[in-house]
Amino acid sequence: MADSALLEHLKWRYAAKKMDPSKPVSQGKLDVILEAVRKAPTSSGTQPFEVLLVTNPEVKADIRKVAWDQSPVTEGSHLLVFAAWDNYTAERIDAVLAQLVEERGDLPLLNQYYENLKATYLPRDAQVNHEHAARQAYIALGFAMIAAAEQGIDCTPMEGFVPAKVDEILGLREKGLKSVVLLPLGHRDASGDWLLQMPKSRKALEAIVTEVK
Amino acid sequence: MADSALLEHLKWRYAAKKMDPSKPVSQGKLDVILEAVRKAPTSSGTQPFEVLLVTNPEVKADIRKVAWDQSPVTEGSHLLVFAAWDNYTAERIDAVLAQLVEERGDLPLLNQYYENLKATYLPRDAQVNHEHAARQAYIALGFAMIAAAEQGIDCTPMEGFVPAKVDEILGLREKGLKSVVLLPLGHRDASGDWLLQMPKSRKALEAIVTEVK
Repeated sequence: MADSALLEHLKWRYAAKKMDPSKPVSQGKLDVILEAVRKAPTSSGTQPFEVLLVTNPEVKADIRKVAWDQSPVTEGSHLLVFAAWDNYTAERIDAVLAQLVEERGDLPLLNQYYENLKATYLPRDAQVNHEHAARQAYIALGFAMIAAAEQGIDCTPMEGFVPAKVDEILGLREKGLKSVVLLPLGHRDASGDWLLQMPKSRKALEAIVTEVK
Repeated sequence: MADSALLEHLKWRYAAKKMDPSKPVSQGKLDVILEAVRKAPTSSGTQPFEVLLVTNPEVKADIRKVAWDQSPVTEGSHLLVFAAWDNYTAERIDAVLAQLVEERGDLPLLNQYYENLKATYLPRDAQVNHEHAARQAYIALGFAMIAAAEQGIDCTPMEGFVPAKVDEILGLREKGLKSVVLLPLGHRDASGDWLLQMPKSRKALEAIVTEVK
């Protein structure tokens, strides 16, 4: 196997179950994580999600209450809430196109591409479109987790929460967003985390990769 | 912003639209990419997807025919097909639990956790479960793209294909899998790729991140 700093970072990372609230994430490292989220590629370049960066202690406490009381929600200095578009709309897609036209020029193929995209997406059921947007958000989630690991920051990806409640707390539905996954950021409390003592568990490569040769 | 090799890799990467078939991906670098896929975290550790690593030229050609004739499918030396579980089943979840018990010991909480998981997942509609599994596959997709970039390997994430046809070509439905995204791996053909000439386009950070403080 070739040398890889990434694989070293992936050995180090785990889903911290207890964080040390006295150690906040520095602004410089947070900026790297957010920039990785921003740079994450998405289908047709739509970036169909937003991230709420929650630092308000009361809001974090409210979210913890609807997230099975998982302590990293409040122990981490920053809570990322990934919220995917509830639907694709003409306005949202036109805005993507407008930025591309501004940056790359008014190419005829570009217009045609996004007209076709609208013809495909807009008649579809909102839930189908939301699911598609959520998948893109998960690419960015992966990017955030790797950026955090590179920076020596711990994080805890969480699906265990009541999305409708988090949406309500953050006023997401009015913005056409639905929360899909939480990612508290902080520093592990090495002495208090049961999971850190456990070996990382993954399936054997042969169990998940099959060559068709 | 803190120093980050990752962000340098993300500047370098793009979705190659033309690859040079004379430059295959080395085994050592491929191994890093697959190991990143294997290490990707997933909800409750189920790793609910498989990856078909297609190197057979005829199979790649067949897939290209149902993927809008996108040339990287055959120009790349390796084609990764991410295929998510079509549903969660008791057998699949029990296998995850069995491995954890073997590696971490027979902890009562572990059994309870996966019993609860089955109680939640098994009564749900298969499509809901498949969508959930697909999201996890997209985390691994993100990990694969970053690993490729670190290794100087190009890749082209593709949703533009007919999943049912790819499933048929690869015999996925019999294995309880449904293809969700393709990722050809190779080396960019710098002289022949129109996209490489274009500036990378991303929304401003303020457009996707909002602080709640």
